[in-house]
Amino acid sequence: MRARNLAVVLGTIHRSGPHTRAALAERTGLTKTTVSSLVSDLLEAGVVTESGTVRAGERGRPGVALSLSGHRVATLGLEINIDYLAACVVDLTRTVRLRRTRPADNRNSDPAEILRRLRDLVKETTAEAEESGLRVIGAALAVPGTVAGGVLRNAPHLGWRDVRVADLADLPVAIDNEANLAALGELWFGSRATDFLYVSGEIGVGAGLVVGGELFRGTFGLAGELGHVVVVPDGPACRCGGRGCLEVYAGQDALLGDLGSVAELAARLESGDRRALEAAERAGHALGVALTSAVQLLDPGRIVLGGVFGPLFPWLEGPVGDGLATRLRQLRGTPPPLVVSGIGADAAVLGAAGLVIQQIIAEPARVLGL
Amino acid sequence: MRARNLAVVLGTIHRSGPHTRAALAERTGLTKTTVSSLVSDLLEAGVVTESGTVRAGERGRPGVALSLSGHRVATLGLEINIDYLAACVVDLTRTVRLRRTRPADNRNSDPAEILRRLRDLVKETTAEAEESGLRVIGAALAVPGTVAGGVLRNAPHLGWRDVRVADLADLPVAIDNEANLAALGELWFGSRATDFLYVSGEIGVGAGLVVGGELFRGTFGLAGELGHVVVVPDGPACRCGGRGCLEVYAGQDALLGDLGSVAELAARLESGDRRALEAAERAGHALGVALTSAVQLLDPGRIVLGGVFGPLFPWLEGPVGDGLATRLRQLRGTPPPLVVSGIGADAAVLGAAGLVIQQIIAEPARVLGL
Repeated sequence: MRARNLAVVLGTIHRSGPHTRAALAERTGLTKTTVSSLVSDLLEAGVVTESGTVRAGERGRPGVALSLSGHRVATLGLEINIDYLAACVVDLTRTVRLRRTRPADNRNSDPAEILRRLRDLVKETTAEAEESGLRVIGAALAVPGTVAGGVLRNAPHLGWRDVRVADLADLPVAIDNEANLAALGELWFGSRATDFLYVSGEIGVGAGLVVGGELFRGTFGLAGELGHVVVVPDGPACRCGGRGCLEVYAGQDALLGDLGSVAELAARLESGDRRALEAAERAGHALGVALTSAVQLLDPGRIVLGGVFGPLFPWLEGPVGDGLATRLRQLRGTPPPLVVSGIGADAAVLGAAGLVIQQIIAEPARVLGL
Repeated sequence: MRARNLAVVLGTIHRSGPHTRAALAERTGLTKTTVSSLVSDLLEAGVVTESGTVRAGERGRPGVALSLSGHRVATLGLEINIDYLAACVVDLTRTVRLRRTRPADNRNSDPAEILRRLRDLVKETTAEAEESGLRVIGAALAVPGTVAGGVLRNAPHLGWRDVRVADLADLPVAIDNEANLAALGELWFGSRATDFLYVSGEIGVGAGLVVGGELFRGTFGLAGELGHVVVVPDGPACRCGGRGCLEVYAGQDALLGDLGSVAELAARLESGDRRALEAAERAGHALGVALTSAVQLLDPGRIVLGGVFGPLFPWLEGPVGDGLATRLRQLRGTPPPLVVSGIGADAAVLGAAGLVIQQIIAEPARVLGL
């Protein structure tokens, strides 16, 4: 009961901003004595702070306002991408306090070796956060593969199967698919829209559906595998064992061909290079087909293109938008708006840090050991 | 507050079976006086009944058990199919009390004319229900098209757009897509599994995803349009304005060709007719492709083939199952089990009646005017 009340009080401050103890009591229906006792635990744990005074209503004297504290507790977002390792530290007010990226080539890599490097990155970033007075109390890791039961089941581009990362650091580490976490990153750190399909363009292509501010995960947490939606049933073989999947046409490898980077591709597209334009056109066409199927099945409020599709948006918008309009117009009127993500490559690592913040808000007693 | 407590008491009896007043008080945390008063309202409204005695615990004298009443209140499920109109009356214990089907050809029909016939069917079935002592207090209608804001937006096979049916009878009538309601029919009247994708094979093909016993509706209630998932991007034109949609290959028209009925097709398949076998093979292959995309995006617990796919299951199971296994094995291990619906063509009309029962259980005060 106390655990539940701690969550009610912290959740009220989180959702509705600074409150006095009296206002918290009025809003939650708890007694003032109970609220005061809960608040002193939350103050001690460093998750709320007393910040100036507010008037609780028209009458009465002003009280001390309690807000989420951005100064003492933080969470760590981590990402194993095919091309890099990333970490970020976010405080409870969702302010990003630091980010670190280490370029890497993680294709067909040894999990033990990569996890060792990630552990070094964790040590470094948590130490740096501690220097500025922030205690990192939890972490989540974004991985480019399917996750079930806290285990990375299959990351075809990493070449990893059934890898457990729970013991990554001296911290509890949650693990989730990068597209799921990127969708949550877009929700919490991006446009603040609450209904969208986030499309993550990386070496692999994934998606995360958010409906009414909640991530849709499916039955086993495996929903949103947009990269393996079938575009051409007898198309080229895909790494997943299928044929003609979206990834074969619109994954980063297909887009780049023999080019070295997305920046290089964007430069070629800017200069009107024919092969680059054809690759973007082909990817855009395939994305339009796969997203048509996704809209028919998932019914998203809008479509947000992220990851490498962000910098390539000017060349993808036309073919993707045309495909959606042609195929969806009659049954749905206008297709869902197609927009570019505002948070770029950081979406997944931010979503990972945000996931831990959400856990603290939802279950402060458990996460903080109160 | 009283409205909420009525729902708590009725919901407890619905979920956990017969209870004495004392057991209800203990379970809900309400006082015995409050429970007695709520129960007498529910008794008067005819939704619960006193049925024998039960012992509330180890000690104490037995009390009168309160159960859902199957004798006084009922709901009406309705369906406008392309080939028929249907109605069923279901009592609160989810026992089907009567069913009526009127063959019809509703293709490109006049909504006013069809709604007039449906109104006759409503009058007839409610009168018949009343003769056996059942008062029909609400109805829901399944339609083969998209529904938003209580309006049938677009039913391409009926040729209807923006048709309002709220004033169908002297009853409140909810309206929903037939595949959504068929999925709920499967949930409440079928195998009782709580995680599945119900695939409705009719003139159109639709689907309803159930996760943890809840129907997934998407952002605007338009999720699950499996029939317009793209199978071949440059395939034949579909009625929806797209090309190569599943419906073009696996809708009832594509399956039947110039045959007159599904029964005739099944007979031809039994006898090894080459053209019939080819049509089933083609439909099964297309279903395998579209369901692969659906599994990748929706992550269902199992796949239930219903509607006309039911009688054709023996010929579809092979090609659909092979397609799923080949394309999904590597990323997911085993694909979701593929099974046939046990409730046949009645799924949607049963789900419609069940939807109203669910509304009564969830909001008895509003629906019953208590």
